[in-house]
Amino acid sequence: MTPSDLIASLHWRYATKSFDASRKIPADVWAALEQSLILTPSSFGLQPWNFIVVTEPAVKAQLSAVSWNQPQPTDCSHHVVFAARKTMDDAEVDRFLASTVAARGGKVEDLAAYRGIMTGFVANAAKQGWLGEWAVRQTYIAIGQFMASCAVLGVDACPMEGIAPPEYDRILGLTDSDYRTVVACAAGYRAEGDKYATLAKVRYAASDVIQRV
Amino acid sequence: MTPSDLIASLHWRYATKSFDASRKIPADVWAALEQSLILTPSSFGLQPWNFIVVTEPAVKAQLSAVSWNQPQPTDCSHHVVFAARKTMDDAEVDRFLASTVAARGGKVEDLAAYRGIMTGFVANAAKQGWLGEWAVRQTYIAIGQFMASCAVLGVDACPMEGIAPPEYDRILGLTDSDYRTVVACAAGYRAEGDKYATLAKVRYAASDVIQRV
Repeated sequence: MTPSDLIASLHWRYATKSFDASRKIPADVWAALEQSLILTPSSFGLQPWNFIVVTEPAVKAQLSAVSWNQPQPTDCSHHVVFAARKTMDDAEVDRFLASTVAARGGKVEDLAAYRGIMTGFVANAAKQGWLGEWAVRQTYIAIGQFMASCAVLGVDACPMEGIAPPEYDRILGLTDSDYRTVVACAAGYRAEGDKYATLAKVRYAASDVIQRV
Repeated sequence: MTPSDLIASLHWRYATKSFDASRKIPADVWAALEQSLILTPSSFGLQPWNFIVVTEPAVKAQLSAVSWNQPQPTDCSHHVVFAARKTMDDAEVDRFLASTVAARGGKVEDLAAYRGIMTGFVANAAKQGWLGEWAVRQTYIAIGQFMASCAVLGVDACPMEGIAPPEYDRILGLTDSDYRTVVACAAGYRAEGDKYATLAKVRYAASDVIQRV
């Protein structure tokens, strides 16, 4: 992709308020967006997340009702819910190490030093009370990568923090799981006539947000 | 960009451990990456961040020293520091509204209802003690969009949470500012022979991280 194509894509995107409910994301495009979720970078590679992809109309309608009655979950093609792990423990580190060995070969024992760094990190974060928030931050990397991926593929998206996470958890069956809803993003195609599509983008000037050292 | 090109780009990227210190990101490519920072979506559009782009060799070396002596800040082309606002207040909301009117026309008075929603949000978040973390989450959207943008432009990157934010703040003169260092990302080009470049990517299976509803 050229630099100017990237700039054009990122200018083209906006927080879509009105989706065309008749348009669905094609399978090959969705497959790439799903890969963008799976391939999101994370701290240590620990991937403390689950992504719930909602396409079932009845569930989408339920989620709109607990998203301040905004229509995006209902009218979009794929409504993605970003859920973060509630806790981490040594078993979760070991699950990751097993996955590493499955991908790269070698033996788990050879990763003992790396294991120690990660379990030490997890124990320290848990003790200091920011382990849950650490996982949340990682899910925000995922929504950032997802929105950029949507933009370069010409898919519209609307990030949604204005949702009721406990209600999402209840509807999606997460309440007693290891994960909790953090944020959501509706993806699909803008409706013709969404007035927000043509409004000028509002961003601070480079001189206000970029410092060069 | 085609779906398969996006997948290829996201597979190509990895957390670059060894940068080729002789290679700099061309000006037109950097300009697009800087736009990806500026254009990052944020909650209400409030952009509670600053991005410090470090290219000065002496400062880069100082930052490596407070990044567990990792070489990436020194050897990369552009070391980007993601800083979040420490606080928000009504004046900051008004700064944003002035920026909105400058971009879109109209009068600030016409945005009174929107202003009320935002100042209410800020007051509530401050009272409940999560305003600072809210700003941090937004900066993680930025690093997610930035890493994806690097990938599609063929620029290597290394996200770095293993840094000493207070030392970064001191070196970059942020200590008494409205912003604080949260996370960093080195950007540039991988060195030939970085052994991490050829390791298989480790990710959980789609069936482990994606739930379809």
